This record gives sequence, C-alpha cells and structure tokens, in this order.
Amino acid sequence: MIARVYVGLKPGVLDPQGRTIASSLNDLGFEEVQDATQGKVIELKLANGERDLVKARVKEMCEKLLANTVIESYRIELDETEE
Amino acid sequence: MIARVYVGLKPGVLDPQGRTIASSLNDLGFEEVQDATQGKVIELKLANGERDLVKARVKEMCEKLLANTVIESYRIELDETEE
Repeated sequence: MIARVYVGLKPGVLDPQGRTIASSLNDLGFEEVQDATQGKVIELKLANGERDLVKARVKEMCEKLLANTVIESYRIELDETEE
Repeated sequence: MIARVYVGLKPGVLDPQGRTIASSLNDLGFEEVQDATQGKVIELKLANGERDLVKARVKEMCEKLLANTVIESYRIELDETEE
C-alpha cells in the first residue's frame, strides 16, 4: 500500500523559498509568474492493512516526524492499487 | 491560474532523504514502513492564459529551473478553478 503525504506551509507563514522561485522565474523571463510556494510530497511504502487504521497511523507519523505542525499543514492520500 | 509541479527523483537514483525518513519512522515504532521517497511540490500562481500555452511555459520553467532533469522527473497539473 502506498501513502502520499503532502506537506506545505500554513497560510501566512513566510515562504522565502517560494519567493526565491518566483523571482528567479521572473528573472528568467517568465513574467506571468505572480507567486510560488514549495512543499514536500513524501511517498511511503507500507505493509497492507485496514484503510482507516493505516490512515490513523500515517497521521501519527505526520504529527511525530513528517510535518512541523506549528508552521506546516499536511494532507494524506492512500493508494491501495499500488504495491 | 494555479499550476502544480511535482518533482521527484527518477527510479534508480539513490534517495538518502527517503531512506532516512523510512529508518527514522521504523525507529519510532512504525515497523509497517517499508520504504519512503521525498519529492517537491511547487505551486505557481500564474496570470491566466490559454491552457496549452500555459502548460508549455510551465514545462519550460521545469526544464530551466524547477527540476534537475538529469536525476529528477516532473509532472505538471493545471488548476483553472483556483485564482
């Protein structure tokens, strides 16, 4: 079973990385870029299990390690089709 | 218009970050984690434009800045509903 965790900064938190990406793209001539944000996508290969239990465990993984919940929010996707 | 670019390592490329995540999760008692990979998700706020043109431009942005195409692959999603 594959779990995908999308981690991004909470609204209002300064995103210097995103700012740098946007200004670099503007400098390269991509004037249409108004803003940019950068987040993480962590893909976890997990032993199979009951969907709700697996999701609860992945939530625990986020709270303990994968996301800094003070400044980051996360979203979990489970993909049972992929091994 | 919002474009989301998912950037990840190509298969076969060593992913020390992913390895570290997986072993840390195992150390925290999450034995069900068999492997992990970490990628980037870059969200770009763009001036509106014709869909195919916008996609071609974002592809160019990936090739020039957002992805190191020697070791990384990328996937582009366009979201016209979001401003």
